[in-house]
Amino acid sequence: MQSKVGEYPFTVEPFHCDFSNHLFLSSLSNDLLNASDYHSESRGYGISYLNARHRTWVLSRLAVEMNDMPVAYDKIAISTWVEAAFRFFTSRNYAITSQDHQTVYGYGRSIWAMIDTDTRQPVDILQIQGGLIKDYIETDRDCPIAKPGRVAISKDATLAKTVTMNYHDIDVNGHVNSVKYIEHVLDLFGLDWYRSHRVKRFDIAYVAESHAGDELCFFMEKAAAKEENDEEEYLVRIVRKGAEDGEVVRCSIKFVKI
Amino acid sequence: MQSKVGEYPFTVEPFHCDFSNHLFLSSLSNDLLNASDYHSESRGYGISYLNARHRTWVLSRLAVEMNDMPVAYDKIAISTWVEAAFRFFTSRNYAITSQDHQTVYGYGRSIWAMIDTDTRQPVDILQIQGGLIKDYIETDRDCPIAKPGRVAISKDATLAKTVTMNYHDIDVNGHVNSVKYIEHVLDLFGLDWYRSHRVKRFDIAYVAESHAGDELCFFMEKAAAKEENDEEEYLVRIVRKGAEDGEVVRCSIKFVKI
Repeated sequence: MQSKVGEYPFTVEPFHCDFSNHLFLSSLSNDLLNASDYHSESRGYGISYLNARHRTWVLSRLAVEMNDMPVAYDKIAISTWVEAAFRFFTSRNYAITSQDHQTVYGYGRSIWAMIDTDTRQPVDILQIQGGLIKDYIETDRDCPIAKPGRVAISKDATLAKTVTMNYHDIDVNGHVNSVKYIEHVLDLFGLDWYRSHRVKRFDIAYVAESHAGDELCFFMEKAAAKEENDEEEYLVRIVRKGAEDGEVVRCSIKFVKI
Repeated sequence: MQSKVGEYPFTVEPFHCDFSNHLFLSSLSNDLLNASDYHSESRGYGISYLNARHRTWVLSRLAVEMNDMPVAYDKIAISTWVEAAFRFFTSRNYAITSQDHQTVYGYGRSIWAMIDTDTRQPVDILQIQGGLIKDYIETDRDCPIAKPGRVAISKDATLAKTVTMNYHDIDVNGHVNSVKYIEHVLDLFGLDWYRSHRVKRFDIAYVAESHAGDELCFFMEKAAAKEENDEEEYLVRIVRKGAEDGEVVRCSIKFVKI
């Protein structure tokens, strides 16, 4: 049996870095998804096993909290492990460190469901390989960040932008890629903002799928300031245009001044 | 002395693939730029040597011609070599193959200039490390695709789209990343188009820089059909809004039916 925690090396690519030479949070999220894929694949419950059985993993929530962001050419490691597994969801955690483990950049938490690719309905995770995933639950490794929280965005959030989903937004599942929403949300803030702020924590909940050609409306509001810290938090709801109940994504971005 | 041709392995990441599971041409181009970087860096005329001396490489033209595109998890190799070096430009070629060299996916050609990062003016490439780059010119390796051609787009091209450059479009040089233009150009075509067409050849000429907040106007026209083949060619000119002489990029995309 393989170890419960998998560790995967990545080199920070220069063109995956922003104007300040720090890795884009969207690119880091892509690496987290890759690490999840490598980890589950080599333990027998990855998408190549699932796809042959008309099943697939669906990312439901992702939270990333960073103390610092690596820069171009840094050699980083993403450790990932399953914290818990239930019938209809499983939680997977991440630690993002330097390859020598001397620097801890941050942590991530995610929640995944499994669906039938024909009916798009949830299926029982514990039925896969006789509940194999339960053999890999790791409870000793700490993930010292809060669990993905509910994003309490009000009805008063204002329309910040409308973006049409194009060819590059769509992945092999035929819908908008999870990472692309993160890109579009972080693009709501301009370069001047990022000159004086960095993302401390990013929470995203995937509510429904969207597709090529969909016009997505990004509604945003600033969260009420909490007295105990100097964070500024913004809440974003993404809704499909022309669909009153067409909520696709909710997220929260906590910035700190730099 | 290192070999003249450098070969670099890449694994095709699933989220760098389109709805049909084929690698995005934009992601492939990113890998070509990474291979260029690794190759020049390890031979003593890369950007870490240059940046310390207020110099940098600037991509002037890129042409990519593909027989086929790798799919997710394919292990590919990018070979790259310098074909020629002159005072104010150098040409670098690429071969994109499987790692066992049994499949040749395609080839690339690029032209680079070097600039002074303070004055943004061209500088003499042959002055760097006493003309070291000339020791690495490879003339035996074939690159069986046409050189980057002039994109003859007419004044009658129509405005297809206007796109504002955001946080994710900008790289550490402070201007729009070369690969992002490719993404925006290929996003001019919808998913239905890509269901029946693939890019056979893509030529792009970088004319001027653009920056965060710039509104870029994408003018497009269909090139006159050439009788000898069944390709469809589109020409695109990107112009900064509000700048009459603000041409930023010209490119040509040749599609074939699939």
